[in-house]
Amino acid sequence: MAAAVTIRILGVGMGPQHVTPEVADALNGVDYVLAADKGEDDALLALRREIVRAHGGAEVLGLRDPARDRSDGLSTGAYESAVADWHDARAAQYADVLRRRGGTAAFLVWGDPSLYDSTIRVVEKVRDLLGPDTDVDFDVLPGISAPQLLAARHRIVLHEVGRPVHITTGRRLQEAVAAGLDNILAMLNPAPDRLDFTGLDDWTIWWGANLGAAGERLVAGRVGDVLPAIADARAAAHADDGWVMDAFLIRRTL
Amino acid sequence: MAAAVTIRILGVGMGPQHVTPEVADALNGVDYVLAADKGEDDALLALRREIVRAHGGAEVLGLRDPARDRSDGLSTGAYESAVADWHDARAAQYADVLRRRGGTAAFLVWGDPSLYDSTIRVVEKVRDLLGPDTDVDFDVLPGISAPQLLAARHRIVLHEVGRPVHITTGRRLQEAVAAGLDNILAMLNPAPDRLDFTGLDDWTIWWGANLGAAGERLVAGRVGDVLPAIADARAAAHADDGWVMDAFLIRRTL
Ligand SMILES: C[S@@+](CC[C@H](N)C(=O)[O-])C[C@H]1O[C@@H](n2cnc3c(N)ncnc32)[C@H](O)[C@@H]1O
Ligand SMILES: C[S@@+](CC[C@H](N)C(=O)[O-])C[C@H]1O[C@@H](n2cnc3c(N)ncnc32)[C@H](O)[C@@H]1O
Repeated sequence: MAAAVTIRILGVGMGPQHVTPEVADALNGVDYVLAADKGEDDALLALRREIVRAHGGAEVLGLRDPARDRSDGLSTGAYESAVADWHDARAAQYADVLRRRGGTAAFLVWGDPSLYDSTIRVVEKVRDLLGPDTDVDFDVLPGISAPQLLAARHRIVLHEVGRPVHITTGRRLQEAVAAGLDNILAMLNPAPDRLDFTGLDDWTIWWGANLGAAGERLVAGRVGDVLPAIADARAAAHADDGWVMDAFLIRRTL
Repeated sequence: MAAAVTIRILGVGMGPQHVTPEVADALNGVDYVLAADKGEDDALLALRREIVRAHGGAEVLGLRDPARDRSDGLSTGAYESAVADWHDARAAQYADVLRRRGGTAAFLVWGDPSLYDSTIRVVEKVRDLLGPDTDVDFDVLPGISAPQLLAARHRIVLHEVGRPVHITTGRRLQEAVAAGLDNILAMLNPAPDRLDFTGLDDWTIWWGANLGAAGERLVAGRVGDVLPAIADARAAAHADDGWVMDAFLIRRTL
């Protein structure tokens, strides 16, 4: 008879304040939690542990994150293939544990699993690795994402009435501008001095770092005016929390 | 001395299962809840009442929704100005109540306040209407949005690795395609036979209606193959719940 494994992919939002009742229930019902451990000062792993403790206290298995090529100069293609290799290495680790322990496992996803997160893809690989001898059942529960918290903090809607919002990465910002888009939300950003804001001086930006954390910072205004303030705020957020992640909405001013 | 009013705009996600701890806390602390009452069978107002009852039971003031021009043939411009008039009428109603009762009021927003929702704009009008005699303080808390639940149910990420997702309205779908976008999430959709899928037969669609409700329906596949199934599923969702709202992701197949 085939062994059976259930995997629950749980979006936890930007911290404990965002853990929905359905995610809390799911956590209470799992046998263990799988998590990537990025090394000594992984503040986000600590936050995951705190969330699990608050909802049933399942065991958290922090697997050492496989090394990943994070070289700065990678082309987009090389970047994507480095990401794919890293997913494979992770999937193999997880498959080992799931094969050994079985039962119901959870993955906690920072924010929402549907935005710039690899957990779903990794779990699909895990399922393939476990092969036909193991029935793998998995589901996904949503969580509050960074763009939503950015909008909430700035008290804005992400688009003008009835108009679109384009969500992309900082490295693709100018590609979106070139396509004629005038309302762009950027994630996965390097520091602002390594982003290309050419031609966008008169646009309006709503920027936020470490949203929901102690070091949260917000800046809004005309791009040409506020970029230095953003660089300072980003450094301050990093100093406060020991890590920094930021996102911004940028809109052509009419 | 100026009177003071606090307004909390609370995203409640797609139902009670998504009410975050911070929203639950906020609800426990408000004096009353303002809600639009769209008439006899307003299932979503009933859901709002249920959520409030579960978190402190503040009084819910269901204000009669001002009439809105929903004529089918409206141009985009006429549509936008009809929406603006309707916001004004709502804002005037809310300002009256807030002036009379003061204290801390909440608005419950379906999904997330940052996506195709007018509450923030209406509250800004309310603040202007209340004028300098009233200090209006307001904040926004995020909620799980329809696109997130759509993605979770289909167990997909909303974009390919490192690539963008464009969020727009069904009526602007072809505008997005014409701009060269190949991964589009559409909301505020009419029935599929009133949407223009010209040229998209070979794209892949992930569609969902009444996500999180009893009548939830999902369909995915090649556009040219599944449009009839979507039309049927939409009718079935409507029959089950007495209302229907749908959203879909559509992606050019490589
Ligand atoms: C790997 S992606 C994960 C996104 C996540 N799944 C979500 O739903 O927001 C990481 C990016 O999300 C954004 N992000 C995540 N947490 C954030 C935070 N607390 N404040 C600001 N941006 C954040 C940043 O753009 C960061 O580079
Ligand atoms: C006025 S907008 C509100 C969106 C909401 N603020 C959110 O965050 O999802 C209404 C549109 O949201 C989508 N929507 C809302 N609730 C939905 C549901 N339960 N299932 C599918 N789509 C839904 C539909 O596209 C609908 O036309």
